[in-house]
Amino acid sequence: MHLISERRLDDVVERRFTLGEIPGILWLPASASAAEPVPLVLAGQPGGFSLEQTHARMLARAGHAARAGLATITLELPGSGDRPRPSGVDEARAQVRASLTAGEPVGEDVIDRLVLPLVDRAVPEWQSLLDAVLDLPELTDRIACSGGVVSIAVRLAATDPRVRAAVLFAGSLVPRSILREARDVTVPVHVLLQWDDEHNDRARSLELFDALGSPEKTLNANLGGHTGVPAHAGAEATRFLVRHLGPSAAGGA
Amino acid sequence: MHLISERRLDDVVERRFTLGEIPGILWLPASASAAEPVPLVLAGQPGGFSLEQTHARMLARAGHAARAGLATITLELPGSGDRPRPSGVDEARAQVRASLTAGEPVGEDVIDRLVLPLVDRAVPEWQSLLDAVLDLPELTDRIACSGGVVSIAVRLAATDPRVRAAVLFAGSLVPRSILREARDVTVPVHVLLQWDDEHNDRARSLELFDALGSPEKTLNANLGGHTGVPAHAGAEATRFLVRHLGPSAAGGA
Repeated sequence: MHLISERRLDDVVERRFTLGEIPGILWLPASASAAEPVPLVLAGQPGGFSLEQTHARMLARAGHAARAGLATITLELPGSGDRPRPSGVDEARAQVRASLTAGEPVGEDVIDRLVLPLVDRAVPEWQSLLDAVLDLPELTDRIACSGGVVSIAVRLAATDPRVRAAVLFAGSLVPRSILREARDVTVPVHVLLQWDDEHNDRARSLELFDALGSPEKTLNANLGGHTGVPAHAGAEATRFLVRHLGPSAAGGA
Repeated sequence: MHLISERRLDDVVERRFTLGEIPGILWLPASASAAEPVPLVLAGQPGGFSLEQTHARMLARAGHAARAGLATITLELPGSGDRPRPSGVDEARAQVRASLTAGEPVGEDVIDRLVLPLVDRAVPEWQSLLDAVLDLPELTDRIACSGGVVSIAVRLAATDPRVRAAVLFAGSLVPRSILREARDVTVPVHVLLQWDDEHNDRARSLELFDALGSPEKTLNANLGGHTGVPAHAGAEATRFLVRHLGPSAAGGA
């Protein structure tokens, strides 16, 4: 993990870094220190968007998290920004667009070819990121996933015991095999669903919520399209993270 | 509206009253006064339970509401406690039980015979209660529904312009005709759904959420059975009420 730049923005410190060739950003509450380390939120990038394209949105979210005492980290997805595209993904994305335009259901094989190569590459990258970032003295070992490509978050939460909770945004296409992996998620989950999401299949999102193996899970569905998550739903997701990562959570670091 | 008794319990004042022959209870924050009037939450009784049977539960909810600056009022349902049962309701309830025990879907005609007589009687009673209670100097005209038989709350919210917001508990059988009436609900709604509710039809609950005409609506679904609403979901429902009734809400009294 190599530091590229650091700047202070109000109550957040933004550190740009690279992990090998992969660019990423860490946002720390300005108050975080070795004496007062903070929990970490792994904030996934939405599929098809680069770190630069989502910067304003992610910074706003990281600011909210920082004011609640949480650090946020993100990493460029395979195939986004300057990173080489996994083969077949461009073709699959074009097929998804064609199906949505025609008002037809997206084929299971197309969903698999779009999402699974991304999940197969991204999950080990996030795990390497965790190996590296947890050495920082400003961070505790209390970690949660939040947002991004939901299938990546599901596999990460299902397989990496360092992840203690997950906010899942049911806002992208989910392969059938990921629904099966969801049964292995046992940490508390908070699922955000936009009821009229134009990019999404509501029934599949409800199926995903149902499939999650967690004994504690909440679905928070709101009227509106893909990017219309209301402020109160964002605030509730942050309260969920604080409840499970904050200093008062059971089994603290 | 006739006052029967008044007692102070911690930070709540409990007033028992009758409206004609119908018993009810009003819980006021101890701080409420003509100089500092508070908004009012209409807290419906769950179907099949009397005021006395639900007293401990309702008092706990009223206490939470009072600490958030809200008064709570409730009224005995037609057919509950000492009130005469609408004809056909006992029969319909027995048929519902038989269907649930047999693991069969409850017939639409049975749902209609169980729920619609209750709705037809209860809604005018709640409206008379509103006429009477709004004269109290401790209350503003900022009113919301919360809980109880969801079909009663839907019709009340759809037809009475004094209701400004509604917390609906998708926890009882909903007639098809009420799904149509739900389109006329335009105030903000917050729907609580217990994902594994043994008394309920999840698909019908999701259909109800979808049918509500409100431009601002949230579904908050949690794992667990009928009576297992987690504390964080109750707290979020109270925040919803405060957001829409509290002194900082737009268009204040």
